[in-house]
Amino acid sequence: MKFRRTLLLSGIALALAGCTQSNANDDANANAAATTEQAPNIIFLIGDGMGFEFISAYRYAMSERGANALAPTPFDDMLVGASTTYPDDDTWVTDSASSATALATGVKSYNGAIGVDADKHPQQTIMEKARELGWHTGAVATSQVNHATPASFFTHHPSRQMYNEIADSYATTKFGDSWSFDVLLGGGTSYFDRDDKNWLPELSAQGMNVVTDMAELEQAQAPVLGLFAPVGLPFALDSEPYLAELTRNALRILDAEQAQSGKPFALMIEGSKIDWCGHANDIACAVHEMHDFAQALQVAKDYQAANPNTIIVVTADHSTGGLTLGQGGEYQWYSERVMDIKATIGTMVKGLLERPRDQWRAYLEPLLNLPVSEAQWSELVAIELSATNDRGDDADLLQDALVKLTGELTRTGWTTSGHTAVDVPVMASGPYAERLRGYQDNTDIAKVLLEIVR
Amino acid sequence: MKFRRTLLLSGIALALAGCTQSNANDDANANAAATTEQAPNIIFLIGDGMGFEFISAYRYAMSERGANALAPTPFDDMLVGASTTYPDDDTWVTDSASSATALATGVKSYNGAIGVDADKHPQQTIMEKARELGWHTGAVATSQVNHATPASFFTHHPSRQMYNEIADSYATTKFGDSWSFDVLLGGGTSYFDRDDKNWLPELSAQGMNVVTDMAELEQAQAPVLGLFAPVGLPFALDSEPYLAELTRNALRILDAEQAQSGKPFALMIEGSKIDWCGHANDIACAVHEMHDFAQALQVAKDYQAANPNTIIVVTADHSTGGLTLGQGGEYQWYSERVMDIKATIGTMVKGLLERPRDQWRAYLEPLLNLPVSEAQWSELVAIELSATNDRGDDADLLQDALVKLTGELTRTGWTTSGHTAVDVPVMASGPYAERLRGYQDNTDIAKVLLEIVR
Repeated sequence: MKFRRTLLLSGIALALAGCTQSNANDDANANAAATTEQAPNIIFLIGDGMGFEFISAYRYAMSERGANALAPTPFDDMLVGASTTYPDDDTWVTDSASSATALATGVKSYNGAIGVDADKHPQQTIMEKARELGWHTGAVATSQVNHATPASFFTHHPSRQMYNEIADSYATTKFGDSWSFDVLLGGGTSYFDRDDKNWLPELSAQGMNVVTDMAELEQAQAPVLGLFAPVGLPFALDSEPYLAELTRNALRILDAEQAQSGKPFALMIEGSKIDWCGHANDIACAVHEMHDFAQALQVAKDYQAANPNTIIVVTADHSTGGLTLGQGGEYQWYSERVMDIKATIGTMVKGLLERPRDQWRAYLEPLLNLPVSEAQWSELVAIELSATNDRGDDADLLQDALVKLTGELTRTGWTTSGHTAVDVPVMASGPYAERLRGYQDNTDIAKVLLEIVR
Repeated sequence: MKFRRTLLLSGIALALAGCTQSNANDDANANAAATTEQAPNIIFLIGDGMGFEFISAYRYAMSERGANALAPTPFDDMLVGASTTYPDDDTWVTDSASSATALATGVKSYNGAIGVDADKHPQQTIMEKARELGWHTGAVATSQVNHATPASFFTHHPSRQMYNEIADSYATTKFGDSWSFDVLLGGGTSYFDRDDKNWLPELSAQGMNVVTDMAELEQAQAPVLGLFAPVGLPFALDSEPYLAELTRNALRILDAEQAQSGKPFALMIEGSKIDWCGHANDIACAVHEMHDFAQALQVAKDYQAANPNTIIVVTADHSTGGLTLGQGGEYQWYSERVMDIKATIGTMVKGLLERPRDQWRAYLEPLLNLPVSEAQWSELVAIELSATNDRGDDADLLQDALVKLTGELTRTGWTTSGHTAVDVPVMASGPYAERLRGYQDNTDIAKVLLEIVR
């Protein structure tokens, strides 16, 4: 309950989001006005894996079941349509690389592609077009910055698995004297400082402000490479949320650049780990990542309120996990139980593997914080682990058991450890938001943004 | 493939749907014009259980996987927003009665409520307000006409289970000399002609045109009660689709009434059995019901094209089954396999129970029409049925086995035999469509429609 109360009490930002429906005429007027003015700043938020069901889950998790009233969220006044996500492949189900490439370049490609088309030819991204026109650019992610989504906005590689090469591209790609970004924040130290190469001192020597903790970030000015974890940032449920603070700093840095140059900026913000929670079929994890993402959106909306020539676009690259709010025939989704869970399933599995079986229940009880029956406890502590004591297999077995338990007790359903082909939400506000209305393809979103960059 | 080819070749209607995005300015102009003119006709289509995932499934099922192009659907240019569906109950998951009551009256109620609020007080419906103002009214459903959704637009009962009482309400509720409807089409003969009461001769004697086959319907004029099956109409996959033809006749009948009186009409059209296929976790069943519903929408759009002072609204009361297009970790949804299936799971289960085990495979092979492995066949024909030879239990066991088999082979995921709390799509075109944009509650939709009825 602490999480929800904190939100409701401290939520000045959320209160600002209000419950008002977006007014199409206002948008249309803003749109008409904007075309004759300077191109707007672009803030493009991507909830990785954030299908409609994640929005519903977040809203209900923030609200009191049975109170017949919903808590406001920053998403409420922004919905304009939906988008298909299929790749240029023999499947309807995209991965994050193909979909990010579509969202960054307007070109469909194969699963795994980073900023390249089906023939592996590099395609110009929104960020590259912006940079060529002297705009300021940036990205924020809760994954490593060289993960598929941010990578597809700045680099070109035939495979998302080329993590080191993607880091190298960030370090070496230049537009004149500038890197491809003014600010790049997320995880990924281990890819920039690795056995065969340490880019960090080299980049610092060239004038990049390399920061690795939040206090340093608060003082940093462009260009900034901020890496706050070896790979991805910790999950919000296990740690503290990062995305809103990173977003605030990215906007501060880009706004200062804009004040100097008079040029607009384009910033991509990824809620990367909504997807990771989806892959893990971990509903509490997902809702807390959604909260982090919603708070980042609120930071963007506050910036837009002060700087109206700013378009905000929010979408997802695909949906993950086949989440639904209903499971096993019961007409319930126990939102308050979801909010009572105190750790990610990944953390709990790790904790179990470090402990003898007779300590499992005492360890799990305060973390799960759910009405687990005696029969369910008995089943869990008697789980048969692999005869070979393979910790990977054992982790999978425990993961499956905790997914089943949390699913049954919260009535959360999942169908896959992968992605799904279901259409995703499209939200937008500010100039040109009108252009993103209705049903569209993910490439259509990029085409509108590429047109705005001028 | 026959189904898809028929669609693509004969699909004049679908071709008309085109791929154009809706133009918000046109809508806004139409809206402004309409407020000073006569109130528009209302065509309100409800896809029972039709969450976003059913739209995605339908679109991909109509398209060729790997061709990197999507078949157009009548839904494409109509998406305007999404809606929450939660009831006035201690759950986020609604049933069809509560949600239909919200969509018909603008008032939230408890699961099971038919046109009454939480205190069981009758609430005025869109159809009743229309009738009081001299409008023409009607409903079309593929369920029995006294099922929850149509019943909530015309009657008031504390429980959806009161099927006979709902039939009695239809038969006896009068507005002056008229019934509450000019046209009511669907299934349900067994509730109007039952042991304790046969309404049909009595209604005929009072001037109601009671019809029970499609040829009679083609000739009928208002008032019409058309009942084409004892309970629900057959599934489109097992039989022929009905909804588009029923819709065409309902519009013909209401249009003739309007020509005489000069008054608008309000027509509710329910794709009732999308939900039933969802409850059965039967993807082929669902996609064929979606096609029937899409064709009915196309009939409505054709009517609107000829009669522009008509608003069409399309939404769902909730989503059913926890459908997703992705299952078991594979990044695929085999749409062509879904279209290859030749019968509903319900029909196949019935067929299996009528046959000895040694005929099961020969019976199922041409109906499933899927690449079932030898191991899967062995598992299926060896399924352990109930020792007591309970046909209900045995049907459930066979149902579960066929859900598992079709799910694995098409990579369709389901999480529940019930409903889910995930938000549903809202689509609209014509005057006032602008008012339904963005994120809203299901009661907000009814409030806009109640305002239009004037």
